Amino acid sequence: MESREAHFSFGGTQQVWRHRSASLGVDADFAIYLPPQAQDKKVPVLYWLSGLTCTEQNFITKAGAQRVAAELGIAIVAPDTSPRGADVADRDTYDLGQGAGFYVNATQEPWAAHYRMYDYIVTELPALIEAHFPVTQVRGISGHSMGGFGAIMIALRNAGRYRSVSAFSPIVAPTQVPWGEKAFSAYLGPDRSAWAAYDPIALIRTVKERLPILIDQGLADSFLTEQLRPELLQAAAQEAAHELILNLRPGYDHSYYFIASFIEDHLRHFARFC
Amino acid sequence: MESREAHFSFGGTQQVWRHRSASLGVDADFAIYLPPQAQDKKVPVLYWLSGLTCTEQNFITKAGAQRVAAELGIAIVAPDTSPRGADVADRDTYDLGQGAGFYVNATQEPWAAHYRMYDYIVTELPALIEAHFPVTQVRGISGHSMGGFGAIMIALRNAGRYRSVSAFSPIVAPTQVPWGEKAFSAYLGPDRSAWAAYDPIALIRTVKERLPILIDQGLADSFLTEQLRPELLQAAAQEAAHELILNLRPGYDHSYYFIASFIEDHLRHFARFC
Repeated sequence: MESREAHFSFGGTQQVWRHRSASLGVDADFAIYLPPQAQDKKVPVLYWLSGLTCTEQNFITKAGAQRVAAELGIAIVAPDTSPRGADVADRDTYDLGQGAGFYVNATQEPWAAHYRMYDYIVTELPALIEAHFPVTQVRGISGHSMGGFGAIMIALRNAGRYRSVSAFSPIVAPTQVPWGEKAFSAYLGPDRSAWAAYDPIALIRTVKERLPILIDQGLADSFLTEQLRPELLQAAAQEAAHELILNLRPGYDHSYYFIASFIEDHLRHFARFC
Repeated sequence: MESREAHFSFGGTQQVWRHRSASLGVDADFAIYLPPQAQDKKVPVLYWLSGLTCTEQNFITKAGAQRVAAELGIAIVAPDTSPRGADVADRDTYDLGQGAGFYVNATQEPWAAHYRMYDYIVTELPALIEAHFPVTQVRGISGHSMGGFGAIMIALRNAGRYRSVSAFSPIVAPTQVPWGEKAFSAYLGPDRSAWAAYDPIALIRTVKERLPILIDQGLADSFLTEQLRPELLQAAAQEAAHELILNLRPGYDHSYYFIASFIEDHLRHFARFC
């Protein structure tokens, strides 16, 4: 592992590392915030999955999460959103290819070689983090937009692995909206039966673990009605008697200004289950 | 004025505007955060001057200041750091020209036509803000690095105009360090007697108003010993019996991670004098 950045931040340190990822088959960058408490003991860790076009940088520079993480004594890991590099398949668009990994294991060409973000996030990255940093195995997962989808989908599929799950402005129904249909068609192929394993709406009907899902959604979000559609997950959760806290926030948009305004609630949500 | 951005943020709104600046002779962008209290009454306003390479964006996306501004009920105005545009003189370097206005009125060619940031910050921008937004004439000024220099220099030169002044990692002695010497030589010419009007070290010896100066400085700042040298202002302040609170922060660097960690203190400093 190669250290790329290290900055003091609220008494802890914001770090960025590069490592060779076996899942992705390329070098990958991730960020980790270690709170001051990590100098003396192991701390719980929240995984943050970012949205389309993001790298590990967006969350750590814009969300203002370090202040509350330092207070609560939790680490935050923010990975990149896809494999990257000259050898990695890409498209000249923001919603497919590099920066748009959608947290799935691609089965289709030309994506299958490197686009294995599901394995990376669920297995490889936590193993690396828990081996190299002063963190416990108490994990939470959260994210924004595409990453909010990733957080909910991964938590639903991995009972016992996370103490909490939450999301900002998530794509809750990827099989029913343009962003998801485009990505799943490319990464998973045209057979929609292969999509169900990554579909929160399908998953919430079958999962055994009833982890409450916290969602914040801005009502001035320009993607709300076409791409995000939280009401679809709300209906499925209700049918399945799965606890979903859906906070609709008048006036707020899809930006990091929204995330920064409510990230404290999501960190405290995780801390309650630590 | 043309609205460029508007985002809900901590119950208030983060806005970015473009206007034709008479001082600069070009269109200029500035950001303004209006706290929730501004919906009902006029609020005090803190001017934030950014550092080299910055635009109005850096502070508003990275400092995390909106949370405390919303709590305290203060507006924050963050202008750009220089005139910009194809007709504006520039150099292919980060520390002179566009992005590096140094908050002076340039007297030398090719800079004199547009580089009038001193007039812009001291006179034109506050007049515009106070005419168009729900703010009082209670003003504070703060900034980072080049902007920390700008804040201190402008406060020292304009008795009665600001209730408070503070800075992160300021260039306190521009006539004695490479960044300042390069900029002042270009903008003000080789005659060093013309530099004194913009030199905090010279100004603090002569000013009548004894506004306390709050400075936070990271001790892991890579520019500390060559470019910033806070001890020079500390010595001059002591000689002049001018109150200077210099917080030296072990481990912190020159980045916005440092600013974000302590911006709350600077907003509360201003609020105490509102």
